[in-house]
Amino acid sequence: MSSAVETVADLGAIEVLKSKFGDRIVTSRSVCHEFGSDESFHGHYPPDAVFAPHSTQEVAEIVKICARHKFPVIPYGTGTSLEGHICALYGGICLNMIEMNEVLRVNAEDLDVVVQPGVTRKQLNLHLKDNGLFFPIDPGADASLGGMTATRASGTNAVQYGTMRENVLSLTVVMADGKIIKTARRSRKSAAGYDLTHLIVGSEGTLGIITEITLRVYGIPEKISSAVVAFPDLGRAVDAVIMTIQLGIPIARIELLDDAMMEALNSYSQMNHPEEHTLFLEFHGTEDSVQEQVETVQVICEEHGGGHFNWTVHTEERNRLWQARHDAAYAAKSMRPNAQIWATDVCVPISRLAECITETKTDIVNSNLQAPIVGHVGDGNFHLVLLVDHTDPDEEARAQALHERMVMRALEMDGTCTGEHGIGYGKLDFLIAEHGEAVSVMRTIKKALDPDNILNPGKIVRV
Amino acid sequence: MSSAVETVADLGAIEVLKSKFGDRIVTSRSVCHEFGSDESFHGHYPPDAVFAPHSTQEVAEIVKICARHKFPVIPYGTGTSLEGHICALYGGICLNMIEMNEVLRVNAEDLDVVVQPGVTRKQLNLHLKDNGLFFPIDPGADASLGGMTATRASGTNAVQYGTMRENVLSLTVVMADGKIIKTARRSRKSAAGYDLTHLIVGSEGTLGIITEITLRVYGIPEKISSAVVAFPDLGRAVDAVIMTIQLGIPIARIELLDDAMMEALNSYSQMNHPEEHTLFLEFHGTEDSVQEQVETVQVICEEHGGGHFNWTVHTEERNRLWQARHDAAYAAKSMRPNAQIWATDVCVPISRLAECITETKTDIVNSNLQAPIVGHVGDGNFHLVLLVDHTDPDEEARAQALHERMVMRALEMDGTCTGEHGIGYGKLDFLIAEHGEAVSVMRTIKKALDPDNILNPGKIVRV
Repeated sequence: MSSAVETVADLGAIEVLKSKFGDRIVTSRSVCHEFGSDESFHGHYPPDAVFAPHSTQEVAEIVKICARHKFPVIPYGTGTSLEGHICALYGGICLNMIEMNEVLRVNAEDLDVVVQPGVTRKQLNLHLKDNGLFFPIDPGADASLGGMTATRASGTNAVQYGTMRENVLSLTVVMADGKIIKTARRSRKSAAGYDLTHLIVGSEGTLGIITEITLRVYGIPEKISSAVVAFPDLGRAVDAVIMTIQLGIPIARIELLDDAMMEALNSYSQMNHPEEHTLFLEFHGTEDSVQEQVETVQVICEEHGGGHFNWTVHTEERNRLWQARHDAAYAAKSMRPNAQIWATDVCVPISRLAECITETKTDIVNSNLQAPIVGHVGDGNFHLVLLVDHTDPDEEARAQALHERMVMRALEMDGTCTGEHGIGYGKLDFLIAEHGEAVSVMRTIKKALDPDNILNPGKIVRV
Repeated sequence: MSSAVETVADLGAIEVLKSKFGDRIVTSRSVCHEFGSDESFHGHYPPDAVFAPHSTQEVAEIVKICARHKFPVIPYGTGTSLEGHICALYGGICLNMIEMNEVLRVNAEDLDVVVQPGVTRKQLNLHLKDNGLFFPIDPGADASLGGMTATRASGTNAVQYGTMRENVLSLTVVMADGKIIKTARRSRKSAAGYDLTHLIVGSEGTLGIITEITLRVYGIPEKISSAVVAFPDLGRAVDAVIMTIQLGIPIARIELLDDAMMEALNSYSQMNHPEEHTLFLEFHGTEDSVQEQVETVQVICEEHGGGHFNWTVHTEERNRLWQARHDAAYAAKSMRPNAQIWATDVCVPISRLAECITETKTDIVNSNLQAPIVGHVGDGNFHLVLLVDHTDPDEEARAQALHERMVMRALEMDGTCTGEHGIGYGKLDFLIAEHGEAVSVMRTIKKALDPDNILNPGKIVRV
């Protein structure tokens, strides 16, 4: 997987950067090594230098110097991306946003906050707690909000609260020439010009460097109830989800874990659930509205062969349940420590979900592979946690083939090759399979906004 | 207001178009005249020709010819825009989308539909009714869904359902070179590449011609209740709205009409409401959840000096109420038949809304102008229906000054110059005031995607 890419970086840039920022420009081999790969199995490409900026102004200064030298700039959050997003394919400087980690403003009255990109989702929620507020988007990792914005991340709450797409109100961005822009005001809606906010959300650092983010936040619901319910049949579990969504029940979380995943979870997180196909559910609202939702969903689950609801009553127990859900990938990996995780990520229209998941499950068995399934099924999104020993060429080939069939199956169902992980450089060809001619429009935008291809080059589109 | 802009169009294009499409290319003066202005007071600029395409393919063929001749192409829905969006400032051909008015597919199971751009919002809702579904976005006019997408329209339901921004899933678009693209698949979320859907939503025909739209739709709620409540004090009425939103009550509609507007409405729509500052409310949900919402909002309104709730019980009565709300601009105009309507459109963070509206109300009085206020106040968005006699230069100047102060007041409060009407060519300078450097990024995108500036030239950005 890690074919060498020739470094085309103008290393003179580093001298200029050092003359300006001194020892803060770190070029030590060991530090650069750390920033060369994410959590995926993709190849390792260390940058030539690492710098931790303190302000938008500093980012702009760095980018201006890099623009003059045509030197790549790769923004870095927590390194938890899954498609090689932060690999320095062509060398360059890694901007480690870890020190831009302040919550700048909480506008409780407007239900929004302004944060720096290095703030993580858990850090933000800790900060908001005393205001009675929370931020719902929760990918598995405790990722940075900059990285989450850049990859259009989502998580377990998207079915009620949307993804980063729906929850970013405005961004401060340093463009490829060092210009600083603000994409929008704080008002809830606007029809003023092109939607630059959404253009930057999901652009993976290829169109600009995000230095400030205005996010929607929410009042902590009066009542939160979580439950676990097991199903003997995978297809019928998914059908229960589909009916819940089609009835418009405002459920907050509805997550699927198949039998293989429940086995891994029980072992890794010391839990004691039936090792069947299982839904993790959560309801948010007032006392009465939660009661009403629960009653309806219980009936739906019963009708689809689900067992009794196992309720988590206390906050602590609930947090433990959802932490276990977030640790699913690590749990799966623990089943086979010498394998690497390959996290797949398709999303289909909800009407096709049962078909897509059951066909995929059969395909896993037929491919003789180990791949527990976990999914944000309320959105039509699910993952395999493919466990692959990359030193075994036959297994590697079977995994590749399974993954390709899975993506093509989703595309044939009018779905997407990535619900929430992004393209990075791991899915460049799948993006073309999905979007066709539209990729040439993306390429035109990239070339126009970053004519020298210095911003995270080699990701999303080849130019 | 209607200063002449010299026609730079290459009229040779018309000959080529006629050789291809014959009499369907209409160049009669009277027809072209009809398509030269929208519902605003902005100048009249007729196109050189009008054509009603039947398919995406035909639009692509037209655009390809126009691209060769650098001949402007202006898409046209129902002509109900409010900032001169459809004026042919530089001549060219008007694409009247009226004959592309089919609902192509209803995916009831996925709660989405695929429509052609000429379908109007009322037509869609009529079509959906038998499926138990509805589409919530409702600008005042019975606008086309293509036009609503192009202007990022919203309306009275946005507080619960969002605007066109949140409800367009995917678009088929003809680009400036005639290339046909699809911006996304039908899955509810995706992290696959740049968000071209949102780039086209709100681009007002300047980046591409929309020929198919996939929209989210919703189940008709089990229970819908509407009420009207009057307040003696404008600021306190708005404060009641602010508290409702801040408490996260999932109200569907919360509209403000000031005393002047209620007077106009009573007269125009033969209603009999108190002529005080009034909120029109609507609650969607189950029987129980609506009951719960109503109880909370009633308490909030009482605490803010609101009168008793006047309920509309029957569907017919409710429809009459909301039709009256949608007719607000026409009602205001009827107060002064020889004046023209100037519909202003600011939107601010909700915490600043009371201040923004009350200062504006004082400004209207001090300016000695007639301008009833109506607003989607749950979003922080409100309009003046300024009634201006443009033949009176002094009144015209006072209206201009009032409008400019109103926009600047909103911008100072971190709001926007347009919540839902768009930029057209009427707000080019306000866009710059609002976005600063970001406008140069918009201009770069426009130049890259439409290098010869043939798509609705002169709108959103000057190139």
